[in-house]
Amino acid sequence: MVYLFSNILGNFVFDKKFKLVDEGSEKELRTKYPDLNSLPKDKISRILHLFKDKKYYHKFRSENIKLTKKSVKEAVSEDQLIIQTIANINELDKVTNLLSKRSREWYSLYFPELSENIENHESYIEAISTKNKTELMEEINIKNSFGADLNELHVNEIVKLSEEVLKLYKLRKKHEEYLQKVMQKYCPNLLELAGITTGAKLIELAKSLKRLAMLPASTIQLLGAEKALFRHIKTGSRSPKYGVIFQHPLIQKGKRNERGKIARSLADKLSLCCRLDYFKGEFKAKEYKEKLEKKFQ
Amino acid sequence: MVYLFSNILGNFVFDKKFKLVDEGSEKELRTKYPDLNSLPKDKISRILHLFKDKKYYHKFRSENIKLTKKSVKEAVSEDQLIIQTIANINELDKVTNLLSKRSREWYSLYFPELSENIENHESYIEAISTKNKTELMEEINIKNSFGADLNELHVNEIVKLSEEVLKLYKLRKKHEEYLQKVMQKYCPNLLELAGITTGAKLIELAKSLKRLAMLPASTIQLLGAEKALFRHIKTGSRSPKYGVIFQHPLIQKGKRNERGKIARSLADKLSLCCRLDYFKGEFKAKEYKEKLEKKFQ
Repeated sequence: MVYLFSNILGNFVFDKKFKLVDEGSEKELRTKYPDLNSLPKDKISRILHLFKDKKYYHKFRSENIKLTKKSVKEAVSEDQLIIQTIANINELDKVTNLLSKRSREWYSLYFPELSENIENHESYIEAISTKNKTELMEEINIKNSFGADLNELHVNEIVKLSEEVLKLYKLRKKHEEYLQKVMQKYCPNLLELAGITTGAKLIELAKSLKRLAMLPASTIQLLGAEKALFRHIKTGSRSPKYGVIFQHPLIQKGKRNERGKIARSLADKLSLCCRLDYFKGEFKAKEYKEKLEKKFQ
Repeated sequence: MVYLFSNILGNFVFDKKFKLVDEGSEKELRTKYPDLNSLPKDKISRILHLFKDKKYYHKFRSENIKLTKKSVKEAVSEDQLIIQTIANINELDKVTNLLSKRSREWYSLYFPELSENIENHESYIEAISTKNKTELMEEINIKNSFGADLNELHVNEIVKLSEEVLKLYKLRKKHEEYLQKVMQKYCPNLLELAGITTGAKLIELAKSLKRLAMLPASTIQLLGAEKALFRHIKTGSRSPKYGVIFQHPLIQKGKRNERGKIARSLADKLSLCCRLDYFKGEFKAKEYKEKLEKKFQ
């Protein structure tokens, strides 16, 4: 009766007194020792002292580091790239918003009427970056401006800011294109049904596609509404009907009193999509999408 | 006995029964009516009905709008330009900080060792924007990286972000140069003694150079430390020793136990500088600066 013990250093054969007798590949050993049994777990302590030996110890260490490096390297999956990108899109949204407001306030010293005429931040930033005051006055049909007659030195400084903000808006769009490319390969079903940002946000909230695929549909429905959910549980206020999927066009276009229902069906299909993607299934999202659209129109 | 009444429409002469008898320039009227008195204040109500007349009313309105436009236009002073610029510099500090951290986290999937080696955000951003991983590994003398082997598609996306952040850092520097130009003309003494950002922050906190010049030195010393000051008044905690002037090199370089004293002297001289600037006095800041430097070395 001999025992086999395997670890990252190789395979070892022990006799019944737990002395080392041989080592080599598992296949070789199995033919050499027909009565080979794997070591019972409660006996492990009796052979471990062997590996305290200097010879094994160093090998152990270097093999372990190699393995760790490999798994650290491989730990970076599409999940993390998607999560970083969507996190940065959120950050850029905040930043462009902040700097757009600042540009508005600053440029309003020079041309206050413009801010009332262009409500959208991005259009405003684009307008002041690409056109001068005379052109803008013509465009919004204003003859006299209340703004101060600042000279070029001052106006240039504001335009420099708005040009940078415009670039940040463009960067956000590039990030979205990139996300689409990554998700097209990694989770085509989720991408098709949820859209770029909502899909990426779901992965961000679940931390990975794997975990998202494991979540029940009702949890997916409420991802991103945790605060409202716990408020509901704690104080008995109304339960939330949707989390980040609220941004989905189906819910946005839906009738107010049907939104809860739509969210439930949508989360259901999203859950299926994640599972298809995670287990490398077929592409069914288009079909689901059409069904949902038909049902709620 | 006749009365003179003046408003933005011109000068009017009333007789003792408060009937309108004449109008014209003040000089003309004074020679024409030697017994001209200004209208007693308590009698104003007896003549105001006259200006309800349609003829006057329209003229009144258009004259008023003209005046308002003029004063609105003129209300934009260097103060406001400085305040907007320094507010934007503050905003940019926040934003670059936020996006630098994001870049670090993202790039660390690819090359985690770099983040430990370059502590300064701006240098980090510059490094990853201008050099590739191989160059960077050589620079910080690392042979094996734990980072994932991302392909170009993914790395490019991170570099796109860092390039934008680098531009924001550059914009901040341009803003400072601009501030210096504006302040050189508007408040050379304050600029010389306080420096660009601290000087601008003082104006921002006081809302204008005028108000800053009117503040006592002890208030200037604590501008920007309002929270600590009110905590001191309310709870009796230690009183603050400095506000934004804490950033001044004199205080930064000063000995810990002397900092309060330095702040007091510095605020004193800053107050003098603001007054010199506001009342268009001579340039004395250099002299003050040298005196302070001598005193606290």
